[in-house]
Amino acid sequence: MSDLFDRAAKFFAELQSDLCRALADTDGAKEFGADAWQRPDGGGGIARVLEGGAVFEKAGVNWSSVDGELPADLAEQMPGQGRAFRACGVSLVLHPRSPMVPTTHANFRCLTKGDAVWFGGGADLTPYYFFRDDAVHFHRTLAEVCDRHAPVADYDLMKAACDEYFFLPHRNETRGTGGVFFDYLDGSEAALAFVEDLGRTFPHAYIPIVARRQPSPYGETERTWQLRRRSRYVEFNLLCDRGTIFGLKTNGRIESILMSLPPLVRWDYDVMAQPGSPEAELLTHLRAIDWLGRR
Amino acid sequence: MSDLFDRAAKFFAELQSDLCRALADTDGAKEFGADAWQRPDGGGGIARVLEGGAVFEKAGVNWSSVDGELPADLAEQMPGQGRAFRACGVSLVLHPRSPMVPTTHANFRCLTKGDAVWFGGGADLTPYYFFRDDAVHFHRTLAEVCDRHAPVADYDLMKAACDEYFFLPHRNETRGTGGVFFDYLDGSEAALAFVEDLGRTFPHAYIPIVARRQPSPYGETERTWQLRRRSRYVEFNLLCDRGTIFGLKTNGRIESILMSLPPLVRWDYDVMAQPGSPEAELLTHLRAIDWLGRR
Repeated sequence: MSDLFDRAAKFFAELQSDLCRALADTDGAKEFGADAWQRPDGGGGIARVLEGGAVFEKAGVNWSSVDGELPADLAEQMPGQGRAFRACGVSLVLHPRSPMVPTTHANFRCLTKGDAVWFGGGADLTPYYFFRDDAVHFHRTLAEVCDRHAPVADYDLMKAACDEYFFLPHRNETRGTGGVFFDYLDGSEAALAFVEDLGRTFPHAYIPIVARRQPSPYGETERTWQLRRRSRYVEFNLLCDRGTIFGLKTNGRIESILMSLPPLVRWDYDVMAQPGSPEAELLTHLRAIDWLGRR
Repeated sequence: MSDLFDRAAKFFAELQSDLCRALADTDGAKEFGADAWQRPDGGGGIARVLEGGAVFEKAGVNWSSVDGELPADLAEQMPGQGRAFRACGVSLVLHPRSPMVPTTHANFRCLTKGDAVWFGGGADLTPYYFFRDDAVHFHRTLAEVCDRHAPVADYDLMKAACDEYFFLPHRNETRGTGGVFFDYLDGSEAALAFVEDLGRTFPHAYIPIVARRQPSPYGETERTWQLRRRSRYVEFNLLCDRGTIFGLKTNGRIESILMSLPPLVRWDYDVMAQPGSPEAELLTHLRAIDWLGRR
């Protein structure tokens, strides 16, 4: 079991390098920095951030492997005995400069507590303007990975879990057009193989979308809309996200946890999208939608 | 007791008008709008927001008077029997355009639950650049109100409560240079008189600071610093603020609750203030400081 965790941690470290290389190539103008950090209570990580790029206004790809004692309230919500835990993973958030290119987030992690070992993670897409082809491509690519790893992975269930998790109750909308999300996936060779495949495939789900949207022109209207929508991303991460709260409660590295927040954000009072506008069209798609028509 | 609540609600409505008039005069370029809203579960309010002013980039002054049933988890944390409650108050957040002018927040409220009636509120200052005179003027003005209403009001206790409440544990810093904060102040004529005096006096604590800092020149460096510091304001309000969480849990009006968030905000990765710079000087003052030397 411990072997599985160590192999996952090693895979996640390689995945971080590979993702950063692919994303820096996509950006073409800037490279990722690398900040190694130690957690005083055990373990550490490498934070890699690219800022002010040609494609990415802010992109973060973090790797960490930490261990220690969970706070009692967190420990009792998780499988396994006792409070000693280990957690390793890669977490990525990409905030493109162009409002035509969607934001994306992905996370792959392995946890142990007592005898329990499990995987969690997922990937989701947050567009500012709605293009059906993008949502379908993203979902189809992820569904193909799940299908290759049935029955460990189940696209329908993981897609539904994503819609449920990335939901802002106070706004009554999803964070974006979804993806897949899973947690407490029992630690097994098959589960590790699925997580590895999902991590390796993620760039194929996202980078083609960047390639086709990056050339689209946009102006002040679209940029302002993007900055306003980014506020919902902040609201989700600070009000709703279990991962952020886990990081803060386990005394994680603040700048790594909050690298997920967008670079520039607007909160304007009581803004409404013009009926019939492309902005209003996005909003109609911020709910659970069956993108692939497979059910 | 119910009479006290009704008188408080009426006073808060008048205070909202008076504060908006004083602040629009200070701004000189824009006026406050007024959006009346009804809460489906009982009561309602008037949201008043000024955006894009000469002095205020975004200023909100809300009045509300709501009633209904508290969720069980909130109800058990509060005085009084049962779950039926009423809450009225004025809440104000001012985000100036100039980084030389501090942000401020004030809130005055009255709650009833069962037989219990109590007041809460306070006022605090969040500068982007540190000017000792501003902190001292703000605190002295509030302390004079407290002194006029001893023993109901106690500046030393209310100042310490403010430092404790407006604290970001994940950043290990206070939100700003403090002010006064109080809660569960037993409903009495003397308490209402204190709250009225504090509300009436608040403009005298803040507007003179605007008057002396507004003419100061600033450039891109100062503006960028302001936008970065505003991210800490968002973090406090969404991660730490009981008032925001109370509003969201009691199904309040989202745009009124979140009007406290700054208009434009930056999150840059792992920014450090230059040692010896004015930016670094601010940070050394984000802790509990005895501004008046009275203790």
